Amino acid sequence: MRTTRLEAFSDGVIAILITIMVLELRPPHATTLVALVPLVPVFLAYLLSFVVVGIYWNNHHHMFHATDDVNGTVLWANLHLLFWLSLVPFVTAWMGENHFAALPTAAYGGVLLLCAGAYTLLQTAIIHHQGHDSKLARAVGSDAKGRLSLVMYITGIFLAFIQPALSWALYAAVAIIWFVPDRRIERALRSRRH
Amino acid sequence: MRTTRLEAFSDGVIAILITIMVLELRPPHATTLVALVPLVPVFLAYLLSFVVVGIYWNNHHHMFHATDDVNGTVLWANLHLLFWLSLVPFVTAWMGENHFAALPTAAYGGVLLLCAGAYTLLQTAIIHHQGHDSKLARAVGSDAKGRLSLVMYITGIFLAFIQPALSWALYAAVAIIWFVPDRRIERALRSRRH
Amino acid sequence: MRTTRLEAFSDGVIAILITIMVLELRPPHATTLVALVPLVPVFLAYLLSFVVVGIYWNNHHHMFHATDDVNGTVLWANLHLLFWLSLVPFVTAWMGENHFAALPTAAYGGVLLLCAGAYTLLQTAIIHHQGHDSKLARAVGSDAKGRLSLVMYITGIFLAFIQPALSWALYAAVAIIWFVPDRRIERALRSRRH
Amino acid sequence: MRTTRLEAFSDGVIAILITIMVLELRPPHATTLVALVPLVPVFLAYLLSFVVVGIYWNNHHHMFHATDDVNGTVLWANLHLLFWLSLVPFVTAWMGENHFAALPTAAYGGVLLLCAGAYTLLQTAIIHHQGHDSKLARAVGSDAKGRLSLVMYITGIFLAFIQPALSWALYAAVAIIWFVPDRRIERALRSRRH
Repeated sequence: MRTTRLEAFSDGVIAILITIMVLELRPPHATTLVALVPLVPVFLAYLLSFVVVGIYWNNHHHMFHATDDVNGTVLWANLHLLFWLSLVPFVTAWMGENHFAALPTAAYGGVLLLCAGAYTLLQTAIIHHQGHDSKLARAVGSDAKGRLSLVMYITGIFLAFIQPALSWALYAAVAIIWFVPDRRIERALRSRRH
Repeated sequence: MRTTRLEAFSDGVIAILITIMVLELRPPHATTLVALVPLVPVFLAYLLSFVVVGIYWNNHHHMFHATDDVNGTVLWANLHLLFWLSLVPFVTAWMGENHFAALPTAAYGGVLLLCAGAYTLLQTAIIHHQGHDSKLARAVGSDAKGRLSLVMYITGIFLAFIQPALSWALYAAVAIIWFVPDRRIERALRSRRH
Repeated sequence: MRTTRLEAFSDGVIAILITIMVLELRPPHATTLVALVPLVPVFLAYLLSFVVVGIYWNNHHHMFHATDDVNGTVLWANLHLLFWLSLVPFVTAWMGENHFAALPTAAYGGVLLLCAGAYTLLQTAIIHHQGHDSKLARAVGSDAKGRLSLVMYITGIFLAFIQPALSWALYAAVAIIWFVPDRRIERALRSRRH
Repeated sequence: MRTTRLEAFSDGVIAILITIMVLELRPPHATTLVALVPLVPVFLAYLLSFVVVGIYWNNHHHMFHATDDVNGTVLWANLHLLFWLSLVPFVTAWMGENHFAALPTAAYGGVLLLCAGAYTLLQTAIIHHQGHDSKLARAVGSDAKGRLSLVMYITGIFLAFIQPALSWALYAAVAIIWFVPDRRIERALRSRRH
């Protein structure tokens, strides 16, 4: 089975998720600068989630670029990832509207942790299907970046009950680590052509 | 007529349906664990519907993979399926918000039954267009799984007025039966290549 | 310029329009059959609009199937059609929630009239670009069906102030006329191959 | 890396943005013409934003038509553009619901200015990736139109505090300037074929 339609469906779901989050940014009734102040945490939460979902799209794009065909397991591992991603707008709204309170901030980290876990599972399913000598397997290697993210998310969840600002800083740090698209795959693809 | 654009349009509609259901999961105003409790049935209803719609996408994907071209009847049979699928978010919300009360649970089963019927119709329209000796016709065979699902949905609808939890178990059981993508088609496709 | 991306974008917009209309079908708080009664006109309005938008998608699909490349004018004529289609959810909700009152029913017909006009403009722009000897030009011919629809919509708009049920019957009649996808194009395409 | 999936994702996001704006156009409860009057500024704001987003889609389409492959920087520059575009529904609703009050009108211009800046950045990233002798570089040239738009948006933002109607006229004027799709690219592509 080719990857085209799986990519198109994932693009659709991710495009909708990244866009419906902005619906939480409801226009205030007043027309003063002060009226925008309560929206600042909502905007910051939206900004972080936009970047996080954008990173998922970017890396998903790269991963399937190094994948030629899929089986049923990969299809389901992909839907599993989309399920946890679909909860990002919910926790973003909960965290933003409650000005980064402890529990919503921890829940936000929890959903990001589940997304990261689902992404790792999907990656493993593809590598298992392709064989451990594949382009993707060599590109991912020991996946230090992936494992570091999981540790950072878990730390962030616990820190939310002490100082939510630190959690937010950690979540943002994971985003910065991944901001650069997965150059490992780009490099592996390039080295293969030469 | 090629199937590309029909697949793209169906992907779009299904991607939107699967995603807007999460909008029913409204963030609570409080930031305590207790505030999440009323969301549990809404979340469970969303989870089941996500899996059900995911199964439709998966099998739709497989079915059109075994289909090369379509006619007007297939186009309309496909839109007919999308119409009933589009009512899934409505019954999901009704059932979830009312904590699996009798009538909403029966209505949920009713919409799933109509979706399953519409899927069977679409399958029949494609087989009729391709001829009864086609890849898809051989893959589907007597469609025991499809007919079993219809019986289970009808039973679930009646059980909703006695014990809605049993209906829910039946609906979930249908999902589990179909969880594995239609291996019959994968097998038929493979056997054809050899 | 190829038509691929224009088709993908139009598919996206139409898929979203056809799906967001269902958001107007808000689940009632009660769990009785009686609670569903006020939703009946909303459901009927949704059903008609789903069929109407489905017909647009279907015919759009057929029309661009007979179109190889586009210019700037066609791009804008297509966006113009999407603009009027984007108002269908608004008038559907207004008409459905007000149980087919006179003015909303007329406004519904007005938006459908503008959609039909925009579709004719798009068709003309494509034929102008392709030359009057093209596949599409021969398929459309004198476009009696298109002109009849315009007359029926105009009649429906006036009838709304006398008896809205008649308007609804006329709008539904237009849908039935177009229900069958544009066989003229299918026929013209087939005759060309032979 | 090919541009196909980037274009599909951008199409998805832009299609959703252009469509969810119409959700702000809430059907009034009354069924009189007078009930539609408060919707007029909301409709005008929607109309302007539909045209603006339509222009972005159109020019995005043209720009990537002249682009064969992308790198990580282009992927991120594209997501950056989509981020600012995603704020258009928010400022459209704020401006429309407040009948073009000073601050919302200035904020609307501010978001359009950021979109225009992001588009210029994306264009620069593509040209940098392709080399300054590429099709796109020659098509864009000194980008007088792009720079004029920025000046007009900045003027519009300041005028909002004096006379918002003038801002609106300026924003509409930018739309008219860009209404014609980027003929420079069409011309450059054509001249290359000959």
